Amino acid sequence: MTATIVTIGDEILIGQILDTNSQHISQLLNRAGITVAERTSIGDSAEQIVSTIDRALRQSQIVIITGGLGPTKDDITKHTLAAYFSSEMHYDEVEAHHIESLLAARGIEFNELNRGQAMVPDSCTVLHNAHGTAPGMWFERDDKVVVSLPGVPFEMRHLMEDEVMPRLSARFALRSIVHRTMITSGIAESILAARIAEWESALPASLKLAYLPAPNIVRLRLSAYDVEGESTRRIIEREFEKLYRIIPEHIVGFEQASVEELVHNTLIERGLTLAVAESCTGGNIASRFTAQAGASAYMLCGVVAYSNESKCRVLGVEAEAIAKYGAVSEEVAKQMAEGARRIAGADFAISTTGIAGPTGGSAEKPVGTVWIGIATPERCFATLRNCGTDRSQIVARATAYAISLLYEQVR
Amino acid sequence: MTATIVTIGDEILIGQILDTNSQHISQLLNRAGITVAERTSIGDSAEQIVSTIDRALRQSQIVIITGGLGPTKDDITKHTLAAYFSSEMHYDEVEAHHIESLLAARGIEFNELNRGQAMVPDSCTVLHNAHGTAPGMWFERDDKVVVSLPGVPFEMRHLMEDEVMPRLSARFALRSIVHRTMITSGIAESILAARIAEWESALPASLKLAYLPAPNIVRLRLSAYDVEGESTRRIIEREFEKLYRIIPEHIVGFEQASVEELVHNTLIERGLTLAVAESCTGGNIASRFTAQAGASAYMLCGVVAYSNESKCRVLGVEAEAIAKYGAVSEEVAKQMAEGARRIAGADFAISTTGIAGPTGGSAEKPVGTVWIGIATPERCFATLRNCGTDRSQIVARATAYAISLLYEQVR
Repeated sequence: MTATIVTIGDEILIGQILDTNSQHISQLLNRAGITVAERTSIGDSAEQIVSTIDRALRQSQIVIITGGLGPTKDDITKHTLAAYFSSEMHYDEVEAHHIESLLAARGIEFNELNRGQAMVPDSCTVLHNAHGTAPGMWFERDDKVVVSLPGVPFEMRHLMEDEVMPRLSARFALRSIVHRTMITSGIAESILAARIAEWESALPASLKLAYLPAPNIVRLRLSAYDVEGESTRRIIEREFEKLYRIIPEHIVGFEQASVEELVHNTLIERGLTLAVAESCTGGNIASRFTAQAGASAYMLCGVVAYSNESKCRVLGVEAEAIAKYGAVSEEVAKQMAEGARRIAGADFAISTTGIAGPTGGSAEKPVGTVWIGIATPERCFATLRNCGTDRSQIVARATAYAISLLYEQVR
Repeated sequence: MTATIVTIGDEILIGQILDTNSQHISQLLNRAGITVAERTSIGDSAEQIVSTIDRALRQSQIVIITGGLGPTKDDITKHTLAAYFSSEMHYDEVEAHHIESLLAARGIEFNELNRGQAMVPDSCTVLHNAHGTAPGMWFERDDKVVVSLPGVPFEMRHLMEDEVMPRLSARFALRSIVHRTMITSGIAESILAARIAEWESALPASLKLAYLPAPNIVRLRLSAYDVEGESTRRIIEREFEKLYRIIPEHIVGFEQASVEELVHNTLIERGLTLAVAESCTGGNIASRFTAQAGASAYMLCGVVAYSNESKCRVLGVEAEAIAKYGAVSEEVAKQMAEGARRIAGADFAISTTGIAGPTGGSAEKPVGTVWIGIATPERCFATLRNCGTDRSQIVARATAYAISLLYEQVR
């Protein structure tokens, strides 16, 4: 069973917004055993919408479309779909009432444009959008399904989870897709590939191996498509056991889990707490942890000590240490981690201090220089990493390094 | 001039990674006057790669491909392209030397797999990847261009900026695309559309209007494609002046700028400083500001006061206030903002305290309840917002509300 995902909107093509919808839809379809054949983003053009749906229906049984359902003139998806399915429009009283009460709660009058949102094609099943004003639509033709959802990520997600997935499961006999991921650390992709080459060549043909490198981490994913029963899972387990025996010292975790999820789970399991002191990563580490439901069990406090004064005032870093070694130094990284651990009363603390650029670098400490400090119940130390030359990359890498160093301490 | 962007990788189709490359490439092409006709993501399959390139070349003159250039077996883009352009491979000594020295700097041995990375098709121009081990490739056929780049975002970006864009400008006579955006605040999309309907209908046919809603904000974007000379810019200016006269009280800014960029620019211009105290947003607000180069000019300190104790210990919130009103309350939001402003010695401070869920809600304070506090040199107050029912959405909305409330204070 395959699907094509189509996201509609000029704002995607000009790069004004990041298309996160496609990723979320891919995950949901995959979990239900539906292979995504292609994801495509097109503009608000009737001609392009029609030709893309034509093509999508040739290559897959399910087409999920998002975007272009707003109340304004640039949103043409609904009328294009009505024409595509040779359908008249009618006024849906239930949806109209829902839209009216949603707007009333926000003190907004129900006007002509909102009335247009309650118009739906006769040929579709309306998917109720409990969280927004644009209803979803479910069309069927020749045993194939075309679903249209609003582009607002939050509304799309609830419609996919609450309406679309249950209907797809009921409509089609779905097989499952199995992905399992092993996470390695401290070994470069090419060296890793050389070390496991023999194992890789001997893999059963039904399994597909992928290498997914990230700072300090390479994920190895084994995938099997169109799976029936439990035997594939056992085959993958067995292959991972063999792999483990080849590189035991480099295996840090399993499954889709990001390293912050691994830390999150470990801290909760072990009943430990965390504090974070960030300079160059600017709140990014704290937000990675707090994005996870349940983080309040261990996350006590984060300090984004951007100015030198706040490093001293809030974290208790010695002004002399900054004067003597500079704010980006082993000593200051250690004092930041210790300070965060102390003021929060936490078991573990991590800190970052570095030069995110584009300015502020020197010959001795170029842009990308980052010290990462770790304070544990037993000791405090700091590690130097060069995190690249580009601001966003430096922040991302420093964050990934810091979290993976923390993982080595807590696991 | 139009382009198609193709991102290759099973990890995109199963939703394991978010495709940020497409957005960045779209932005760069757009700025140079190249219209992106379509963005498509496909798997690591030779058949799919070939059919997608065929289609892309039918609809556009430029095809930009990312992904599938790694050293491992699942990466097949290079060999597929070599076959597509009927080309033999040769060993590129310059690239081999570059790869070897990059690896040496990281203490990694140059092995067979890396040797494979230095093999390139005869028919392409090699694009030197200064930041990674996979070279880019530039192919030409029938006056059309196909570019293949590595999927690592950082490497892709530098190759696009340093190699691809200059070559495209030299190769084609590019016209420009003009986008201008006006940012409105405090008016719902449907009400806004009704108020400006007459203006919208009277817009010149060469201009395309788009509505881009976000919490508390609706952006209005006017776009003109295939533009020569300066007259279009003047026409857009004139239309925006008319629009301003219709809804002056709702216009908060112009251009592509996000609200945090507007705050960033305003604080720097006015020489003012900022502190942030976050509970439910967990570092997200701080990281939005610090992601911008130059944030250290105003960003003094952020505190992620996740535990009640850290609210008291670090920010000086009164334990009695938490006991009496609860951590999610007007009083605590105000004390958090005041505390952040005081400990950082900043001109302005914002705070958030709320219930991000999925647990912790009650009838009186359901999940999504967020108090946003603002402390200015003159006063301190807090505003209550309901930010939805989903954790990531609550964090995103609370962040957007807080930053837009701050903007109202500093502008």
